[in-house]
Amino acid sequence: MWELGLLQYSSIMNINRDPMFLLSLLLFFSISSTSNAKIIPRFLSKSNLPSTDSLSVALKQNNPKYSYETKYFTQNLDHFNFNPQSYQNFSKGDIEWFAKNTGFMFEVAPKFKALLVFIEHRYYGKSIPFCGDKEVASSNTSTLGYLTSTQALADYATLIIDLKKNLTAEDSPVVVIGGSYGGMLAAWFRLKYPHVAIGALASSAPILNFENITSPYSFSNIISQDFKSESANCYEVIKGSWKQIQNKAGQPGGLEELRKSFKICKNYINANALEGWLQTAFVYTSMTDYPTPSNFLAPLPAYPIKQMCKAIDEGRERNDTFAGLYGAANIYYNYSGSATCFNLSDKSDPHGLAGWTWQACTEMVMPTDGNNEHSIFPPSKWNVMDRFTFCKALFDVQPRPNWISTEYGGHDIKRVLKRFGSNMIFFNGLRDPWSGGGVLKNISESIIALVAEHGAHHVDLRFSTKDDPKWLTEIRRKEIEIIQLWLHQYYNDLHL
Amino acid sequence: MWELGLLQYSSIMNINRDPMFLLSLLLFFSISSTSNAKIIPRFLSKSNLPSTDSLSVALKQNNPKYSYETKYFTQNLDHFNFNPQSYQNFSKGDIEWFAKNTGFMFEVAPKFKALLVFIEHRYYGKSIPFCGDKEVASSNTSTLGYLTSTQALADYATLIIDLKKNLTAEDSPVVVIGGSYGGMLAAWFRLKYPHVAIGALASSAPILNFENITSPYSFSNIISQDFKSESANCYEVIKGSWKQIQNKAGQPGGLEELRKSFKICKNYINANALEGWLQTAFVYTSMTDYPTPSNFLAPLPAYPIKQMCKAIDEGRERNDTFAGLYGAANIYYNYSGSATCFNLSDKSDPHGLAGWTWQACTEMVMPTDGNNEHSIFPPSKWNVMDRFTFCKALFDVQPRPNWISTEYGGHDIKRVLKRFGSNMIFFNGLRDPWSGGGVLKNISESIIALVAEHGAHHVDLRFSTKDDPKWLTEIRRKEIEIIQLWLHQYYNDLHL
Repeated sequence: MWELGLLQYSSIMNINRDPMFLLSLLLFFSISSTSNAKIIPRFLSKSNLPSTDSLSVALKQNNPKYSYETKYFTQNLDHFNFNPQSYQNFSKGDIEWFAKNTGFMFEVAPKFKALLVFIEHRYYGKSIPFCGDKEVASSNTSTLGYLTSTQALADYATLIIDLKKNLTAEDSPVVVIGGSYGGMLAAWFRLKYPHVAIGALASSAPILNFENITSPYSFSNIISQDFKSESANCYEVIKGSWKQIQNKAGQPGGLEELRKSFKICKNYINANALEGWLQTAFVYTSMTDYPTPSNFLAPLPAYPIKQMCKAIDEGRERNDTFAGLYGAANIYYNYSGSATCFNLSDKSDPHGLAGWTWQACTEMVMPTDGNNEHSIFPPSKWNVMDRFTFCKALFDVQPRPNWISTEYGGHDIKRVLKRFGSNMIFFNGLRDPWSGGGVLKNISESIIALVAEHGAHHVDLRFSTKDDPKWLTEIRRKEIEIIQLWLHQYYNDLHL
Repeated sequence: MWELGLLQYSSIMNINRDPMFLLSLLLFFSISSTSNAKIIPRFLSKSNLPSTDSLSVALKQNNPKYSYETKYFTQNLDHFNFNPQSYQNFSKGDIEWFAKNTGFMFEVAPKFKALLVFIEHRYYGKSIPFCGDKEVASSNTSTLGYLTSTQALADYATLIIDLKKNLTAEDSPVVVIGGSYGGMLAAWFRLKYPHVAIGALASSAPILNFENITSPYSFSNIISQDFKSESANCYEVIKGSWKQIQNKAGQPGGLEELRKSFKICKNYINANALEGWLQTAFVYTSMTDYPTPSNFLAPLPAYPIKQMCKAIDEGRERNDTFAGLYGAANIYYNYSGSATCFNLSDKSDPHGLAGWTWQACTEMVMPTDGNNEHSIFPPSKWNVMDRFTFCKALFDVQPRPNWISTEYGGHDIKRVLKRFGSNMIFFNGLRDPWSGGGVLKNISESIIALVAEHGAHHVDLRFSTKDDPKWLTEIRRKEIEIIQLWLHQYYNDLHL
């Protein structure tokens, strides 16, 4: 047994008087390019970690009005095996970071008189088995083996049932909400544990982004389209830049020139690493192309792709492609303006997301890095064997690319779920490269797809701002309306 | 990796011309009194194993018309963990025994042009991991830990998907059918893997026979009622016999008298063991109170409870209670007439069901042995701690009595499944003590309860005979009709 972190937002809790609605958030996080064996996983570098003081954006996230309490829950290491192994937790973590980037829940909880619970996913943040020893937990396949989506879902079920019992709130309905991988978990949780959650809001959940369901070219096609939609020139410049970088790097003194152009720190430079660094910026900016300033993966202005393309188009005008690209990268890596140079070999992981690499090497084999001739990135084919090689070398583990669709389905989803299941919302923003693996059409009367042409990765779950475009406000209104319907139905059924 | 046995009945297979309907049977078996810590597990003793030659009943089961082929499938030991462990199979087993007791499938398969597949449950029969070494597989909690329902369901999903792919029959619908624990698995399989099975026929599946859902008195109440319904005297005699046996055993020479009365072999006698032996006969006869001769748990005449009560009532007339009880026991233990004495210490397990004790000590904590003042058995309270003590001593394992309802639900099932799930049939015969934990009322338009007042444990799945009562023929007709509807709907949806 070990402990699972959860955040409990109880300022509006009123369980004894009102029929309480318990809103549970499954931990969600951005699916990183770790799932792309060719782009090295890269999160925020230390040089540009946001300092709250220097940031005028996204302050609302730190509003003390949205306070919470962190609690722990002792959990089985292995729900599907009775070989008894007991562990307890502790480590440092970042559940708060997720909580702060999911304002929607904080804003809607009072409407529903809901207790808001954030449940951390095992092996992330503070929820580390093996006495909380991250080193031990990630030391080998034997200890990492318990890091799976099925175990995480069973954690949630166990915790929610226990929590409701302890609160004498057995009849209170639970709605699960999550974004990205957390959205996948929310959808799967509703499918596998309908007796625990009455409905799920799965935001930007690419549950179809698996082998033989979604094209491996879909992901980069959307990124290409995102940039092209801002400026044909911007797209062309980026598309042509990979060759220019390789050429420059091959010339005498060329790497030194590139270092200067991109303000790379002196410790390390290499053409592939530089390209990976740029690609990461383009991938993540596509995911987080939000209509208002944000600070999720990095502090960013409103519509950051537009800003990037502006920099690139200006570079073209001055006939300096690298200056334009640098300007674009600077928007992603240094919007706060505090970085003096960029570290290409930085492997820091401020939000504790390293576990994702293990997941990408076991269950979460999501084909995303196919690039065809129209791609903004250099052409490449998705080959699942690359993943096998990568994972064999890193963990000595063999991925199971068909396991997710065996366990949760995905093929022919419309036919399967049309007469099975209910009460699910799939939100997708079409700017989001993950939307290609999302559910984009209604499946039934109660399994609904909400699609926002101009939306990015789980934009609906962010705090609302006065500058939100109409379509975003409308999406959130619809989500609340649908959830209200579920609740209404639930209470009606309960009193029959 | 190890191998899972499956029987493939292919005489009517015609997958390339017709839209094939693939009918898959989840291994089912009678839930024994192993789940009742107070009745010692006891299956058929060697002395009365049916010899086909000596049996005039149930010959149809051996009809060569219903031939099959046994194949093997390599399987992951642990679907929910990526700690790689590889194993292969082999041992002796009894999947044929189950197949022979499920004539319904053989009879309906041709109607549906179906390929009939019996998939054996891991740790039973020939499907033993750890190189098929039963000794190793059952040696400790570490090796037994993989014997769980969730792993078994994942085995089925993996196997069915692979089988369909190999047969180029991806579009062929699968219906899962099972009885007893296999019925529970069938129901859970449809709930958890709707993308693999379009529907489930769950016969005598006590999915509600768990802590705080079904009363622990329900099981013995039904047995009491079964005997009472045949003869009030019969019920009274059995109810009073426990005290008489204890009294007799306490007298000088009393055990020797009991030994003679019940033809117990000379190796061992004891009042509690004798009572357990009699109770086993009453429990299993209630479960298998079929309207025609059968040979499932033991060779039995039609309506065996009636026969037992006849013996008991005759004993009463002759003022010899023990002779009457012996006559009743003889019907269960020696209907073939070949036994010369009965062995109370016999622990033989002809059908390889020992794994159930492990399951009863981990997930399958099914409260059944409460006996109130009206019970035909001596009064006793269900106390889950008895199970804990038993399992601690036997396996050094701690049961999780709430795990099944956490993983699969059960509480408030009508409300939960009314708007979730579809295409399930729950059959229950009300003579069956397990029916108290079954689904006895329709849940929705497509989650149907079929109830037979005079039916016993999965009687619907037995081979039909010319002597079947009308209600039984009618139940099977309805089942086929409903399955036909699912298929019709499936093909309609497929071609949309």
